[in-house]
Amino acid sequence: MQKFPSLDVLRTLCMDLPAGSDSAAAAVRARQAILTKPPGSLGRLEEMVAWLATWQHRPPPRLDRTEVLVFAGNHGITRQGVSPYPATVTAQMVANFARRGAAINQIAGVAGATLRVIPLDLETATRDFTQAAAMDEGEFLHAVAAGYEAVNPDVDLLCLGEMGIGNTTVAAAVAAALFGGGGSRWAGRGTGIDDEGLERKRRVIDAGLALHAPVLGDPLLVAAALGGRELAALLGATLAARQHRVPMLLDGFVCTAAAAPLVKLRAGALDHTMLAHLSSEAGHRALADALGLRPLLDFGMRLGEASAATLVVPLFRAAVACHAGMATFAEAAVDNRA
Amino acid sequence: MQKFPSLDVLRTLCMDLPAGSDSAAAAVRARQAILTKPPGSLGRLEEMVAWLATWQHRPPPRLDRTEVLVFAGNHGITRQGVSPYPATVTAQMVANFARRGAAINQIAGVAGATLRVIPLDLETATRDFTQAAAMDEGEFLHAVAAGYEAVNPDVDLLCLGEMGIGNTTVAAAVAAALFGGGGSRWAGRGTGIDDEGLERKRRVIDAGLALHAPVLGDPLLVAAALGGRELAALLGATLAARQHRVPMLLDGFVCTAAAAPLVKLRAGALDHTMLAHLSSEAGHRALADALGLRPLLDFGMRLGEASAATLVVPLFRAAVACHAGMATFAEAAVDNRA
Repeated sequence: MQKFPSLDVLRTLCMDLPAGSDSAAAAVRARQAILTKPPGSLGRLEEMVAWLATWQHRPPPRLDRTEVLVFAGNHGITRQGVSPYPATVTAQMVANFARRGAAINQIAGVAGATLRVIPLDLETATRDFTQAAAMDEGEFLHAVAAGYEAVNPDVDLLCLGEMGIGNTTVAAAVAAALFGGGGSRWAGRGTGIDDEGLERKRRVIDAGLALHAPVLGDPLLVAAALGGRELAALLGATLAARQHRVPMLLDGFVCTAAAAPLVKLRAGALDHTMLAHLSSEAGHRALADALGLRPLLDFGMRLGEASAATLVVPLFRAAVACHAGMATFAEAAVDNRA
Repeated sequence: MQKFPSLDVLRTLCMDLPAGSDSAAAAVRARQAILTKPPGSLGRLEEMVAWLATWQHRPPPRLDRTEVLVFAGNHGITRQGVSPYPATVTAQMVANFARRGAAINQIAGVAGATLRVIPLDLETATRDFTQAAAMDEGEFLHAVAAGYEAVNPDVDLLCLGEMGIGNTTVAAAVAAALFGGGGSRWAGRGTGIDDEGLERKRRVIDAGLALHAPVLGDPLLVAAALGGRELAALLGATLAARQHRVPMLLDGFVCTAAAAPLVKLRAGALDHTMLAHLSSEAGHRALADALGLRPLLDFGMRLGEASAATLVVPLFRAAVACHAGMATFAEAAVDNRA
């Protein structure tokens, strides 16, 4: 039985989202106020703990099980010359993940997180979106369901990421469709395309927007027509995390664009996410601003693979450790402010 | 035998600094170019590895031994009402560190770093700098030597921090003396002083600058007249790290101000440091800009204790792990760019 037999079933689930726990956040804030530090002096670390508690629905939050999900897909649009790397690299990198040779393997090890890589029909690229919808409704729903079902409801924090040669073009097309502005606003250099390739990328995006103009008002049809399988899976996983009350970290430009249709369907749909990092990919700042996401890091990274989402996990560990392990003013017999 | 029998001995050592290893950095960059990722796509993580190698004088760098040093001091200026907390809190927090009740204990645990806390004559506050030099030459040199000698030459990465009620006033006075602009430019709210207290803090700084006008051209005399023991120790530790070729992380506003006289004595004196975090303390951005330091994080923290310097250690671990553990394109049989 398909998880999402129709777009309408998916759409309904996208509209009916659980809220976070205000009381869990309030309990966190009450404890933060009596720990041996000036009020608010741990800055964003304090927000991070309150956010974890809000979406784990418990104070204090814990980080016993952190999982990283990386979805991989191939794109028909690569035939238009939008990447300096051949499409064969997607499957080769999936093999590299399996042999622990990629950046995400190392970063997940430092973060104490479990990594799962989920390739999505790599042998069958999506269709070139300048010629047809990248996926038909069935293909799209299948990929969304793969992402949804990959999420373990029992994890304490989920990190999402992707791999797919050509997918910054796809992500830019989705962002342009949702927020306007065309290829010149959203296309970036991806893995490092040259000036001529960047110009081509912009034209390809604009051609896709023109062809699919009739569906641009429907965020899910945008994701099917201009997106890709790994982006659809990221959308499904983001939705699953919300439904299962799992706080999650968005990685970079592609991951953010993949989740963006959810906000277009329902305001606040990404409240259970934090954005790990502001990618150096050109469109990411505008996209983060449009979604009201404030990145934790600005490290000039542009790798994907959940590398940034997983990189910040130890910062959450530190935040949670301070919250759980610090002494209160009373316990430590430290004089509080006059 | 005193490490620094005179200011001139210290001054000479401040001028005679070893360079980093360009060849170690070049070896790091050569390896980064063949790892399975687009060139430069790990952004700042790649810079961090090259910087570690430069100052460890070896490629690849390692992080087997990371140490945190926190210096604590008391300040006569607290009698002017520049902090909402009583000066007794400095010693109480040192006891809290010893019982593992403070934020830095938790953050060091997550970072896998060893913490040492070094109280500096807490029972004898420095003099109120609106009345006299905070320290005479002997007191200043003694504190600088305590910091210098606390540095273990064998550590791979050093994190510095401080604790001292009143020391954001002291740091602001030092910054003002070195870079101009007076109390209104440099005073911030520290642990959370109110508007009236902030105004008082500004006046206190301006009074100190006026009293010590004759020495403002000499960075070491500034550090003695307007500084404090923990700031002097931080200066000594920063100098020791450079002399011993230990890369080190600056923490926040006080730590940065403490190290600033070294740059006034010799350009490039802080090249072996990175700034962990942009504090929410008002003067920190201007101070970081003046020193050419680009913070790794902007988390709105303002705690001191080496909390931010130690928080970023896992980011360095991830950077080093990627560098050491990733496969090359050839090893992984991944097609490189066309």
